Amino acid sequence: MVDKRLVEYVNNNIERFAGDVARLVSQPSVSARKEGLEECAELVRKMMEEVGVRARILKYQDAAPLVYGEISSSKSSKTVLFYNHYDVQPEDPRELWNSDPFKGEIRDGRVYGRGASDDKGELVSRLKLVESYVKTFGEPPCNFKFCVEGEEEVGSVHLHEYVERNSELFRSDAVFWEYGEIDLAGRPSIALGMKGMIYLEFRVKELEADAHSSAAAVLPSAPWKLVRLLNILKDENERILVPGWYDHVENISEEEEAVLKEQEFDAESFLKAYGAKSFVGNMNAEQAKKALALRPTANIAGIHSGYTGPGSKTVLPSEAFCKIDFRLVPEQDPQDLMEKLRKYITEKGFGDIEIKVESMERAARTSFKDPFVRAAREAAQAVFGVKPILKLSEAGTGPLYVFTKRYGVPAVVMGVSSTDSMIHAPNENLRIENLRKGILWFAETVERYITT
Amino acid sequence: MVDKRLVEYVNNNIERFAGDVARLVSQPSVSARKEGLEECAELVRKMMEEVGVRARILKYQDAAPLVYGEISSSKSSKTVLFYNHYDVQPEDPRELWNSDPFKGEIRDGRVYGRGASDDKGELVSRLKLVESYVKTFGEPPCNFKFCVEGEEEVGSVHLHEYVERNSELFRSDAVFWEYGEIDLAGRPSIALGMKGMIYLEFRVKELEADAHSSAAAVLPSAPWKLVRLLNILKDENERILVPGWYDHVENISEEEEAVLKEQEFDAESFLKAYGAKSFVGNMNAEQAKKALALRPTANIAGIHSGYTGPGSKTVLPSEAFCKIDFRLVPEQDPQDLMEKLRKYITEKGFGDIEIKVESMERAARTSFKDPFVRAAREAAQAVFGVKPILKLSEAGTGPLYVFTKRYGVPAVVMGVSSTDSMIHAPNENLRIENLRKGILWFAETVERYITT
Repeated sequence: MVDKRLVEYVNNNIERFAGDVARLVSQPSVSARKEGLEECAELVRKMMEEVGVRARILKYQDAAPLVYGEISSSKSSKTVLFYNHYDVQPEDPRELWNSDPFKGEIRDGRVYGRGASDDKGELVSRLKLVESYVKTFGEPPCNFKFCVEGEEEVGSVHLHEYVERNSELFRSDAVFWEYGEIDLAGRPSIALGMKGMIYLEFRVKELEADAHSSAAAVLPSAPWKLVRLLNILKDENERILVPGWYDHVENISEEEEAVLKEQEFDAESFLKAYGAKSFVGNMNAEQAKKALALRPTANIAGIHSGYTGPGSKTVLPSEAFCKIDFRLVPEQDPQDLMEKLRKYITEKGFGDIEIKVESMERAARTSFKDPFVRAAREAAQAVFGVKPILKLSEAGTGPLYVFTKRYGVPAVVMGVSSTDSMIHAPNENLRIENLRKGILWFAETVERYITT
Repeated sequence: MVDKRLVEYVNNNIERFAGDVARLVSQPSVSARKEGLEECAELVRKMMEEVGVRARILKYQDAAPLVYGEISSSKSSKTVLFYNHYDVQPEDPRELWNSDPFKGEIRDGRVYGRGASDDKGELVSRLKLVESYVKTFGEPPCNFKFCVEGEEEVGSVHLHEYVERNSELFRSDAVFWEYGEIDLAGRPSIALGMKGMIYLEFRVKELEADAHSSAAAVLPSAPWKLVRLLNILKDENERILVPGWYDHVENISEEEEAVLKEQEFDAESFLKAYGAKSFVGNMNAEQAKKALALRPTANIAGIHSGYTGPGSKTVLPSEAFCKIDFRLVPEQDPQDLMEKLRKYITEKGFGDIEIKVESMERAARTSFKDPFVRAAREAAQAVFGVKPILKLSEAGTGPLYVFTKRYGVPAVVMGVSSTDSMIHAPNENLRIENLRKGILWFAETVERYITT
């Protein structure tokens, strides 16, 4: 168990830590709009220096800056790397927020604002871990490194280049990934991988200009064409219809199946958090749990065509577009899938539709038998007093493979967000009690890991 | 033939007439946004008085005001009614306009701006017809009435009430409908009817709040549901799949078939005006001509869900909606069709989707054998020197049946717009030469009609 003095330091300073989450939230940093990124990187650098981390800002062409930090320890030769990001998702629809998304507001034991959990709250929990060690013992228990990028929410489009060009900087023995969820019953989760993703836009153009909709009797319609394209992408059972899409999707091993079975999953809370009546396709909780970890998806993130204001406008729109994210599992190669997708839609008569690929990422997964994973599990039991939820994979995406593949090191996805943190949605928030316990969990994990 | 002095007056004043189109365009009047309607009605009233028409503004509850006008004649007991509207479609997408949509701009022989053709240019052509008679001969050749409403672009939702409550005011012997097209070869068209319309919105809500798109593996998706609904509404051959939709659609008579066959239709110009490669479903020109007059349609006027800004946002949208206009033919009853539509989508499992009906209008059609129609045809030949294009029905919609059914009078749809007037689209415009010829055509039609 971690030293009592560290626990006391965290307990005594937790309100101030929450204030620092609000402080970081108050600097907007929406990567989709390239808004506030330089300023936020500078604030992160400053906050690192404040807790004793030597920090600097890396730049690559016109990419968002990446903040690198390190602090060494005389107590262990091991190095643990924290991966986080300072950019956030756009805040819209703004009218559904109960407080300003870019003014961190503390109420009812939570910090509210865009990024309060994803990923500014998570980053602050790790910076405060360092502060707590430095203030209590003068140094951390092992070497820590920070990799805090500014383009995660737009697909980490330059992370590969940053790592490639600074290969020695990012070497470590184990990686803490950006975030993790604690459920509404207070059980933390440890995920061992993330899904990959293809994010793309389909753009349909049928006319040079919008026409009066009476012409719809004879002129081709961009939105109808888009609807027809979407309809051949996925069937009613959520199966993606592109031939070969599931070719390299492997069945999981019996041991992994057992891990999955043991994984607790509060289906009711999950549904309740989104106000959903049931899972899609009437899946039961077991099936939903498996789908979150292992199912490739095709999601319409946005669609638009024509007049969408109040009242009626009788127009035949010349153009239509939609944004789709496809989540991938470890065996799927995004390049290969894109070729199959292009071939398929061309054969189906949609070859003239423009496809703009926004980003592509492979999936990644660490073995559940790794000592780093064991340390995280035991630490969770010690701090939270319950068995953690072990997940073969998060349902979400992140460029985990950039580190795990290059350096051959384990990575765990764990953190301080909550099932009801509303990440990527209005009223995103962080529970301050999760922040407190999370910091202690990281401390416990690191101390157990360095003695293995 | 009309008196030479009238022709001279029109020719000598045509630039000033064009200026009055620009003047009326410069008063925004977007009924979808309830913007500028009172002001525009007042301007129309003023412009009527300026040409010698006794005008007054009618009001009904919170509906847009309707401008009524009349001028009597000692020369004939016949009364001709002009139906027009002073409201316009929204101007978006604004960035595609080459000049301010609400500052009428005259360049290259055209007036540019929202409403330059539809319907402010048309209205001004009729007011200037009156002015030309009054200034030249002291009075018009017969009694004229004006019915200028402010809700045409949102489905003429209160026109029935206005006519019902002022039934005597709107009595006439024949009706000139709001507009008509002159093709790029200079041939005017006379249409004898208009299609009906159902304008509605489908609203899908699957979650209480937007979710992170990783949850798409297990949560239902509003935009996918909307796509699936749309997909069962219409097949690839443009046939609406709602059972019974075509039940009351009658075949046209042999005589009407002959009129249709004789109707000229410049397919190439039509396609060119919209930058379309071909007609939908690879129809030939004959088929397209028939479809414009007689085919019931289902058009996606707008669709929206989720994130549609720049870059990528990985969100599972909680809601989705689309706006659809269905064009109807004379035998179809909107109420009956709505019942069939609701029954169909409920049976197909979409009964929980909200349907908001914006407006419903029946179609109408005048016999091509009517003397008023003959007068208009002969007048066209006299003024333009070519045989007019006779259409059994316009492809567009208007509440023609409100007048034709109540009073049992003929109506012709004719006017001064052009195939390339870009109505309802950016860079809407009116050709000034069409304005000049159109005024003379109306004069010629009226003079021939009152002697029948």
